Amino acid sequence: MSVIDDLAREFTRLPGIGRKTAYRLTHFLLKIPPEEACRLAHAIEAVAERVKHCSICSNLSESDPCEYCTDSGRDRTAICVVEEASDIAAIDASGAFRGLYHVLGGCLSPLDGVGPDELNIESLIARLNGGVSEVIVATNPSVEGEATATYLHKVLVPRGVAVTRLARGLPVGGDLEYADGVTIAQALAGRRGM
Amino acid sequence: MSVIDDLAREFTRLPGIGRKTAYRLTHFLLKIPPEEACRLAHAIEAVAERVKHCSICSNLSESDPCEYCTDSGRDRTAICVVEEASDIAAIDASGAFRGLYHVLGGCLSPLDGVGPDELNIESLIARLNGGVSEVIVATNPSVEGEATATYLHKVLVPRGVAVTRLARGLPVGGDLEYADGVTIAQALAGRRGM
Repeated sequence: MSVIDDLAREFTRLPGIGRKTAYRLTHFLLKIPPEEACRLAHAIEAVAERVKHCSICSNLSESDPCEYCTDSGRDRTAICVVEEASDIAAIDASGAFRGLYHVLGGCLSPLDGVGPDELNIESLIARLNGGVSEVIVATNPSVEGEATATYLHKVLVPRGVAVTRLARGLPVGGDLEYADGVTIAQALAGRRGM
Repeated sequence: MSVIDDLAREFTRLPGIGRKTAYRLTHFLLKIPPEEACRLAHAIEAVAERVKHCSICSNLSESDPCEYCTDSGRDRTAICVVEEASDIAAIDASGAFRGLYHVLGGCLSPLDGVGPDELNIESLIARLNGGVSEVIVATNPSVEGEATATYLHKVLVPRGVAVTRLARGLPVGGDLEYADGVTIAQALAGRRGM
């Protein structure tokens, strides 16, 4: 097998990349100068070798503890719980939360064999002793995400912290006409005085 | 800038990959074992370092001449001319052509500053002395591809070779209802007795 086919096969392992896209990417890398293609290779190696899970919050980072856990400017009384490390960047970019994070590493999904023991819930509970007053559950608005939020609510409330959930409703910039019924129902249920 | 952002930025340089997809790919590579991520990195490096243009047909290959030019089982009287090296695999996979190939390296596009001198046309003409009787022009069915085919016809016919063009018509498995008018017109013009 040629190195071209070999690279295309490696590309098809990535999510959302089929055979044709894999060959398109491969031929793009063949067209650009070799040193530019190698820059991508080196970036992949750097990530694979240097990025580890933070021992406190399980975020992916080059340092341990990660940059959020070591940032003294952050509010240490609030922890935002997310499913994946990739969710942190989206929340932090909103600028509306300046507390700490905790990565569950997925969500409860009995069909896939993911129970509470497979998620980083023990390490979350261990962090509550450090003056944490609120846990914001920012799991995805999916069935599994809701189930995970409900479970967290059940185990965290007896430990004396407030447990909140991100609001459901119409996305900003969305179109009411194309919103699904469940979202509209949630937006109605969560309506606020103005 | 973290190595994660650095890799995501490298991914966005690839065609069809925006910022969100780049981060999705990056986080996918963070989830799989490091040695699997490094396999992709090594495959990219191997392609960048070892793949070169064939000195005869300009195909991209690890060997020079490439595997098509050195294959003694191929019909050396016919050359199929393509725009890009990536087109060869598609044609060869059809199993309907067992001759040689020639890669132009693009197509005539005056607006982009691509004239005949920018394409591998001189090297194609040089190959005609070796007993070649037919040149099959397999440029894309686009305006530029048609212009390139017309130009090749003009310069190759006086050199005593038959110049043919891939048939235009309805794609197999296509839906007549959704075919565009130009394709239907071409299919009508090229209709055959049955």
